[in-house]
Amino acid sequence: GHPLVLIAGPCVIEDEETTLGIARQLKSIAEEVGGALVFKGSFDKANRTSVDSFRGPGLVEGLRILQRVKDELGLPVVSDIHEASQVEEAAQVLDIIQIPAFLCRQTDLLIAAGSSGRVVNVKKGQFLAPWDMENVVAKVGSTGNQNVLLTERGTTFGYNNLVVDMRSLAIMRQGGCPVVFDATHAVQLPGGAGGASSGQREFVGALSRAAVAIGIDALFWEVHHDPARALCDGPNSLALDNVKKLWREMLAIDSIVKGTDAS
Amino acid sequence: GHPLVLIAGPCVIEDEETTLGIARQLKSIAEEVGGALVFKGSFDKANRTSVDSFRGPGLVEGLRILQRVKDELGLPVVSDIHEASQVEEAAQVLDIIQIPAFLCRQTDLLIAAGSSGRVVNVKKGQFLAPWDMENVVAKVGSTGNQNVLLTERGTTFGYNNLVVDMRSLAIMRQGGCPVVFDATHAVQLPGGAGGASSGQREFVGALSRAAVAIGIDALFWEVHHDPARALCDGPNSLALDNVKKLWREMLAIDSIVKGTDAS
Amino acid sequence: GHPLVLIAGPCVIEDEETTLGIARQLKSIAEEVGGALVFKGSFDKANRTSVDSFRGPGLVEGLRILQRVKDELGLPVVSDIHEASQVEEAAQVLDIIQIPAFLCRQTDLLIAAGSSGRVVNVKKGQFLAPWDMENVVAKVGSTGNQNVLLTERGTTFGYNNLVVDMRSLAIMRQGGCPVVFDATHAVQLPGGAGGASSGQREFVGALSRAAVAIGIDALFWEVHHDPARALCDGPNSLALDNVKKLWREMLAIDSIVKGTDAS
Amino acid sequence: GHPLVLIAGPCVIEDEETTLGIARQLKSIAEEVGGALVFKGSFDKANRTSVDSFRGPGLVEGLRILQRVKDELGLPVVSDIHEASQVEEAAQVLDIIQIPAFLCRQTDLLIAAGSSGRVVNVKKGQFLAPWDMENVVAKVGSTGNQNVLLTERGTTFGYNNLVVDMRSLAIMRQGGCPVVFDATHAVQLPGGAGGASSGQREFVGALSRAAVAIGIDALFWEVHHDPARALCDGPNSLALDNVKKLWREMLAIDSIVKGTDAS
Repeated sequence: GHPLVLIAGPCVIEDEETTLGIARQLKSIAEEVGGALVFKGSFDKANRTSVDSFRGPGLVEGLRILQRVKDELGLPVVSDIHEASQVEEAAQVLDIIQIPAFLCRQTDLLIAAGSSGRVVNVKKGQFLAPWDMENVVAKVGSTGNQNVLLTERGTTFGYNNLVVDMRSLAIMRQGGCPVVFDATHAVQLPGGAGGASSGQREFVGALSRAAVAIGIDALFWEVHHDPARALCDGPNSLALDNVKKLWREMLAIDSIVKGTDAS
Repeated sequence: GHPLVLIAGPCVIEDEETTLGIARQLKSIAEEVGGALVFKGSFDKANRTSVDSFRGPGLVEGLRILQRVKDELGLPVVSDIHEASQVEEAAQVLDIIQIPAFLCRQTDLLIAAGSSGRVVNVKKGQFLAPWDMENVVAKVGSTGNQNVLLTERGTTFGYNNLVVDMRSLAIMRQGGCPVVFDATHAVQLPGGAGGASSGQREFVGALSRAAVAIGIDALFWEVHHDPARALCDGPNSLALDNVKKLWREMLAIDSIVKGTDAS
Repeated sequence: GHPLVLIAGPCVIEDEETTLGIARQLKSIAEEVGGALVFKGSFDKANRTSVDSFRGPGLVEGLRILQRVKDELGLPVVSDIHEASQVEEAAQVLDIIQIPAFLCRQTDLLIAAGSSGRVVNVKKGQFLAPWDMENVVAKVGSTGNQNVLLTERGTTFGYNNLVVDMRSLAIMRQGGCPVVFDATHAVQLPGGAGGASSGQREFVGALSRAAVAIGIDALFWEVHHDPARALCDGPNSLALDNVKKLWREMLAIDSIVKGTDAS
Repeated sequence: GHPLVLIAGPCVIEDEETTLGIARQLKSIAEEVGGALVFKGSFDKANRTSVDSFRGPGLVEGLRILQRVKDELGLPVVSDIHEASQVEEAAQVLDIIQIPAFLCRQTDLLIAAGSSGRVVNVKKGQFLAPWDMENVVAKVGSTGNQNVLLTERGTTFGYNNLVVDMRSLAIMRQGGCPVVFDATHAVQLPGGAGGASSGQREFVGALSRAAVAIGIDALFWEVHHDPARALCDGPNSLALDNVKKLWREMLAIDSIVKGTDAS
């Protein structure tokens, strides 16, 4: 298999300079550790727990900022969409169009994303069995687009908690699509803080190592230079300062599992 | 409390005459048993398991048929929407606008529905704790619309299965919104038939009795004159022939629980 | 079906006079509401969360007290055992021998209980599917004893929480054994208080109504004259003062469901 | 941390020569890969799904065979007990006394095991949160015995399925006890074959890699020279032929995670 790719960036695009700053730091770490990087940032958080939460700069402004990341840093970029009508504009900029977990069965959205010809990354719903993603892949595939990534981000486990069934990574990979493990959303405690989701940042490293040891194609981390002040998903975001050490660990495990250890 | 209301109708509007036929029969049963009835039918099934499944007549044609049900039978009608852009047209016809479970956290959809001034029935996501619906109610309520119904339709319980936590009915009711129990979706086995969801029609009666005994405001049943040939949700739909007897049982339990037994 | 039986009593036999006092009050309520009663009390709580918790008077003393309940009040009695070696003595006094949920697959214990010839009430493990109780019944049945009751007391649902899958009552009843719903253990929050289990007494009534509405043979309630001071399971025990009203509600629902309403 | 230990052997002691044969092969592999080995075999399977299943040679004969393994091969041995009365004899032979998951809250059993002075390995019940094992450790610790191992073997996840919450390994390890991951029981499908448990041997390698990558003290594998003919747990047992390659992978990941890679 190919070496592990890291998809990383802030949960939401907070503002232009912060976003560019995070992207620059990530790129510099990528060069140091020798890892492949895709930059991630959402332009709109359409399903926040509370109506009062920060949602992001919106489609037009968000895409403009992501285009700058591409232009200045040469990084591929991914973002999520929520309505079929957003696909056309989004596909002008995004290398990967991401479908949120709650929306992973919305037929129109999947078909619109597929029709764009872009790579489509579908997050598995917290309510779905891994083998059920086959039907999701078929919906995108009905457009002729076979470039589908599947992302595990945890499954409903009682109330206000998610569990990662690591078998899911192996099961989804058998279907032929590259598999991504979203370690930072997997440690969310949905609604765990009443009017917001809480999270367990302390398990991001452990779950990431576990997933990489099983064998995955990409790892997904939300990162922030100051998670305590992040406008979204702070409790489950990684601090930028910790990324280098963790990423190195991941690449070491990945090389053993994929048998590509050249040392 | 008010006596139990029944929300019933086919999963999807199959065609005009079938739909009207089911509505007529339901109205005639309602008169016989002395129960309040709201007619339900979807114009578009936007999240079927498979891309090849029947989806319905679409917004315009579906609303036209529901308007006929209103005009000819005098029944209030409910249907579900999937994008904010559908609200304006839908609100011209529907008495109750329904938000599907997967979409129960989509802020724009909730706010658009709320702004219509219609009653909004939100199905609790299979991934949500009952107390988290408070945030959902607040999203609709931010438009000034306090007419919100909350529907229990089961919670993710391992793979390809749902469980109804009956405590949820009591918890959601404490928040002040009328609570609906959707007995026919609660017995779905999501993805249980590979390319489609399966269902356990045999438990609709038992779970309905249980929910009514706890104390609810409305019961939601998908019904069909011939469930084996239904174009959607056949395995979990009730046969029209069984509705009268079951409904009577429900009203008897409801009257004991609400202390309104006049006999 | 036969009218609903109530199995009730304190979680643990605290002392002789308290126990007799509770039994007397329950018997008097039973006569008032016209319901059948079995008295329940444990002589040893062998699996408390913490090693420091009160465990009860032990086998010999506990059985002596239960014998007094039988002699003075004429009530049948049930208690639980934890090792095969306890069966012989227990069977001299108990009308029903109860197998705790955690032990419901311990072959020796089931066979010893079955061999006593007494009715055996097996609580379904929090880790078992309802259809798996068939194998449990076969273990007891291998002794020639077919008098088996099956008790639902909730299923593991994430951490520190249980959910009652009401379908379970219908599924287990199809196997031919009378089915009991243990409403007070079903509302436990296992380990929910750190060094002890917590509980949600406020849902005992709602879940009991739901179970009776589905159709069961017996209801199981732990009761205490002062739950706040109970030495075991206080948070999920019913206050004796509430029993009469609740029991009447149950009998009213039971008579509708079983079609035995003579009024 | 110390390098990873492997606890391995047949589910049940089938007969003397088979057992010795498996032990000899495991020891030879241990020498080849340079890993530490503890031999595991049960003398009695006291909670098989069906009453007709093979249970083992019993306490006396089982311990005699395990003593031969110790004498002839110099391997430490572990087996599980089910009643407090078995501890005295078991402690004469066993280096580690194991408490089965269903019995992990039985106070008398834990205290008897603790009092023996032997290392006690408690499997976390399928119904317990990882933080609740603190109370279990305290029960054993009340005897003055602090040598407790905690084993993760999966948590109830809907019906007839288990999920491994990998966070559990990190949480239990924070308590200070060495943590074991039982990969072969974790892939059981309890009751999944009607009268027996089924299993998913194909995931043993993946879940083992994941657990080792998180950081554990020991790995537990049931192995058999011919799993298809094993008298117990065949569907989830590893074939002896696959042990060497898998063990090497585990040691490689372990050395990265624990920073002990000398190469």
